[in-house]
Amino acid sequence: MTEPHPPVLAVSTVIFALRPDAESGFMTLWLPLVRRTREPHLNLWALPGGWLPADEELAAAAARTLRETTGLTPKYLEQLYTFGDLGRSPGNRVVSVVYWALVQSGEADAAAVDDNVQWFPADRLPDLAFDHNHIVEYALWRLRTKVEYSRIAHAFLGETFTLAQLRDVHEAVLRRALDPANFRRMIESSGTVVDTGLRLAGVPHRPPRLYRYNDSQTLAEQGPLGPLVG
Amino acid sequence: MTEPHPPVLAVSTVIFALRPDAESGFMTLWLPLVRRTREPHLNLWALPGGWLPADEELAAAAARTLRETTGLTPKYLEQLYTFGDLGRSPGNRVVSVVYWALVQSGEADAAAVDDNVQWFPADRLPDLAFDHNHIVEYALWRLRTKVEYSRIAHAFLGETFTLAQLRDVHEAVLRRALDPANFRRMIESSGTVVDTGLRLAGVPHRPPRLYRYNDSQTLAEQGPLGPLVG
Repeated sequence: MTEPHPPVLAVSTVIFALRPDAESGFMTLWLPLVRRTREPHLNLWALPGGWLPADEELAAAAARTLRETTGLTPKYLEQLYTFGDLGRSPGNRVVSVVYWALVQSGEADAAAVDDNVQWFPADRLPDLAFDHNHIVEYALWRLRTKVEYSRIAHAFLGETFTLAQLRDVHEAVLRRALDPANFRRMIESSGTVVDTGLRLAGVPHRPPRLYRYNDSQTLAEQGPLGPLVG
Repeated sequence: MTEPHPPVLAVSTVIFALRPDAESGFMTLWLPLVRRTREPHLNLWALPGGWLPADEELAAAAARTLRETTGLTPKYLEQLYTFGDLGRSPGNRVVSVVYWALVQSGEADAAAVDDNVQWFPADRLPDLAFDHNHIVEYALWRLRTKVEYSRIAHAFLGETFTLAQLRDVHEAVLRRALDPANFRRMIESSGTVVDTGLRLAGVPHRPPRLYRYNDSQTLAEQGPLGPLVG
């Protein structure tokens, strides 16, 4: 018996942006995928990523491979999960540390798009390389769970936003309509947003109020590791 | 210049149990540590763990190394985080996938204890090997965050429990006293526990009610990966 090769480390990224669905017009989650130009899984779509060099931090390698393939440079990447099941990659045992980020639509538009990089609606993906469908499913589940108790929805929004914009994000992530009055009560009682005293410009009658993050809650949520800058 | 060695994969586990503090008598969090019998960090205490073999699943390797060093066999291990900072280990670049579990005090008592395996109070640790103090700090932070919105506290308890026992767990994790009446209202309105209709045996006057998990909420919390059995 020959000794099996030692496990190899890779990094991948799941980047979600909100964009209108082409058919329904409703906001929905999209993510960028990269076409594989080599075996295994030649020509299949895959998450952006690559091998981990011995001298590069995990989050930095995730950020670099994302930038090199898609041109995307999110402000920060958070570690999502490490996938290492036997048989998830033909040949070598590969353990992938997966990072994720939510980007605003402006950032998403800055991404390179060509024959080998395209955005796909998260709930209508083709068969992806390796276990990448499973990874996206896991990321969607985490996002849906997290949106219920954290301020994660704000990552899709600008510095200030209306409650209707915030509700759009929640509806896209949860894939269901939310009652506007109940949503307003839920958000106002959560203390996660603060009324800026300003109102949306360019709306003549009863322009909606603009809100911003409640900064005092930020540190507790990021935890002792702080933001994982790539 | 020589090519640096490729990164090497390891697994470690953080196992928390609730035990009374020797000084205060209050319930507090403890974890088992293993004394290192080789360099680097010879004789320092470290989290149970070891290298990842090419042909073993991540959670299985974590469970095996935990069992081999401490005799502990928790029902399931959950992935906590992957630590891979440059310089966290002298020599090789080591990336550690860390698993964690909460065990009931009965399980904890079954652990081997000798000169090289001991339980330590989580908030009064000595200087540990590698970045293991940092890993424990991160695990404590996750536990404190999670206890606020999930049923994680139940992992420390038996099949049925009183609200006072559940409050003990919350107080140990959060390290602060909680008002009994407020705690009861919070738990009852959360829908996470169900009144069994039974009462604690052996208490003559007004024995407290026994509660159990609300099983209908279990699946949603475990997510699409299911319980990660070691």
